[in-house]
Amino acid sequence: MAAVPTLLVLDAEPLPRLGRLTGQARVVHTDEAGLAARLPAADVLLVWDFASRAVRDAWPGEGPRPRWVHSASAGVDHLLCPELVASDTVVTNARGIFDQPIAEYVAALVLAMAKELPRTWESQQRREWRHRESRRVAGTRAVVVGSGPIGRAIARTLKALGVTAAIVGRVPRTGIHGPEDLDRLLARADWVIAAAPLTEQTHGMFDLRRFGVMQPSARFVNVGRGQLVVEDALVRALERRWIAEAALDVFATEPLAPDSPLWQVPGLHVSPHMSGDTVGWRDDLAAQFVDLFERWAAGRPLKNVVDKQRGYVPGH
Amino acid sequence: MAAVPTLLVLDAEPLPRLGRLTGQARVVHTDEAGLAARLPAADVLLVWDFASRAVRDAWPGEGPRPRWVHSASAGVDHLLCPELVASDTVVTNARGIFDQPIAEYVAALVLAMAKELPRTWESQQRREWRHRESRRVAGTRAVVVGSGPIGRAIARTLKALGVTAAIVGRVPRTGIHGPEDLDRLLARADWVIAAAPLTEQTHGMFDLRRFGVMQPSARFVNVGRGQLVVEDALVRALERRWIAEAALDVFATEPLAPDSPLWQVPGLHVSPHMSGDTVGWRDDLAAQFVDLFERWAAGRPLKNVVDKQRGYVPGH
Repeated sequence: MAAVPTLLVLDAEPLPRLGRLTGQARVVHTDEAGLAARLPAADVLLVWDFASRAVRDAWPGEGPRPRWVHSASAGVDHLLCPELVASDTVVTNARGIFDQPIAEYVAALVLAMAKELPRTWESQQRREWRHRESRRVAGTRAVVVGSGPIGRAIARTLKALGVTAAIVGRVPRTGIHGPEDLDRLLARADWVIAAAPLTEQTHGMFDLRRFGVMQPSARFVNVGRGQLVVEDALVRALERRWIAEAALDVFATEPLAPDSPLWQVPGLHVSPHMSGDTVGWRDDLAAQFVDLFERWAAGRPLKNVVDKQRGYVPGH
Repeated sequence: MAAVPTLLVLDAEPLPRLGRLTGQARVVHTDEAGLAARLPAADVLLVWDFASRAVRDAWPGEGPRPRWVHSASAGVDHLLCPELVASDTVVTNARGIFDQPIAEYVAALVLAMAKELPRTWESQQRREWRHRESRRVAGTRAVVVGSGPIGRAIARTLKALGVTAAIVGRVPRTGIHGPEDLDRLLARADWVIAAAPLTEQTHGMFDLRRFGVMQPSARFVNVGRGQLVVEDALVRALERRWIAEAALDVFATEPLAPDSPLWQVPGLHVSPHMSGDTVGWRDDLAAQFVDLFERWAAGRPLKNVVDKQRGYVPGH
């Protein structure tokens, strides 16, 4: 009988519920500081602390290393260092867990902005009855940048509300536009939703030029990664009223520091990277990993395998 | 050739665009004070000031009076006095104009409460990064009280978001529960949406007993009429945490006075009766009336005819 594999967990509170792996794995917990010393002896690494960038620094260049790394997140940009990309270690992600919650969160932001709920609740604080006309959502146009399961769930949910939603991906395919269509779609969009993985191609793609292409009535939402957006450019676009409003759930640096200017930009709604995190999400993430571990231990092919060159799980 | 009929308009700013009626009607404008004197000479009354209750007081008990009264609103409770109900004057309403806007507004409130957007924007004002778990909307249960076009549009929109939505009406029919099912449905609902007309049966129906039937996690929304709700009872239910949260767009007295206690009840979101009022709504209301007027002038049957005994337009 083969030795029980060693599972190294890069911890974050609350810890994952891995009871189902009892007897199937020797589970070793570590914090960021202990990661480098423990990596060579691990067969599998579970990056439970999905906000940590410690894997990039601790990854062994040579010698023994985990054969498989799983990240409890949709994005894997925080762990893909050149050595890991070059190695034969398999990387998987939490594809599927966040799709519907994030799609609902985007729908909540879109509807809240259309109906001016933030302004209404400000008026409530001042005990002011300010009747206004708000906007219909049905019949408006959205562009969703990101053609993975999250982007597609967002487009599906917006379409259910009567929005015409176009999806832009890395390559055109049925129902998905290629990057060459992006600017044309941005110029006509009422809603621009960023839900792409962070890659060399998408880093900083929402810059001053792209905000300049959008309509003055456009509203921008980022639920992907903070670095998709040049934050200074977004601030300038809002201040100059190149676009009407924006909502950011992700930022270049998280958590956002108390002295960040982003907290107080007129027309900018800030939320603390929570769009995908609905009650029970951590249990869902742990159960997904346990399922994958059992496949891996049984020698069956893994799911959610990241294309390390591209930086995300390709295909449908 | 018959005399051109006299159309009396109970005014509100901005005035209705009735240019298409040029030559077809002699249009006379009035404010509330002039209504009683002008009613006897009018063939048709357009109640453009849908917040006014002046028709109840000014309606002639005997003698000449308009043959047709149209209200630029879905609810007609503000004009149905016993004399008007007993007369042979036809009453029509703005059925159809508000369905989709109100359904979107309810979806906005439901999603905003599920995702805790009000608390997130409060944290933003204090520059606080407070990550929390929010709730999924898909898979939750809603009860929509009101089986007219507005209630049905609300249920349809919530279903599109994956919510199981039951509709309760005055009488059970296909896809619609009768009042005998209401308490059982309330006891299991995550969302209770009031969208009924104000009638003798619905006045004060959301009282302390009914809030007591609901789950502590339930959230209540009123987009119907203020008097559907016993406001004191709702305040007590929120203070005692019998229910989790509520959103009111309509009130027993509108506009809500600056010293109303409702502005500051924890967990109560107040909006200024705007759920149905999207950009262009006044033009839609005027165009709908002009269409009806042309039918009426041509001797064709009117649409949106209110059953004055019941207080709303019956049937599908």
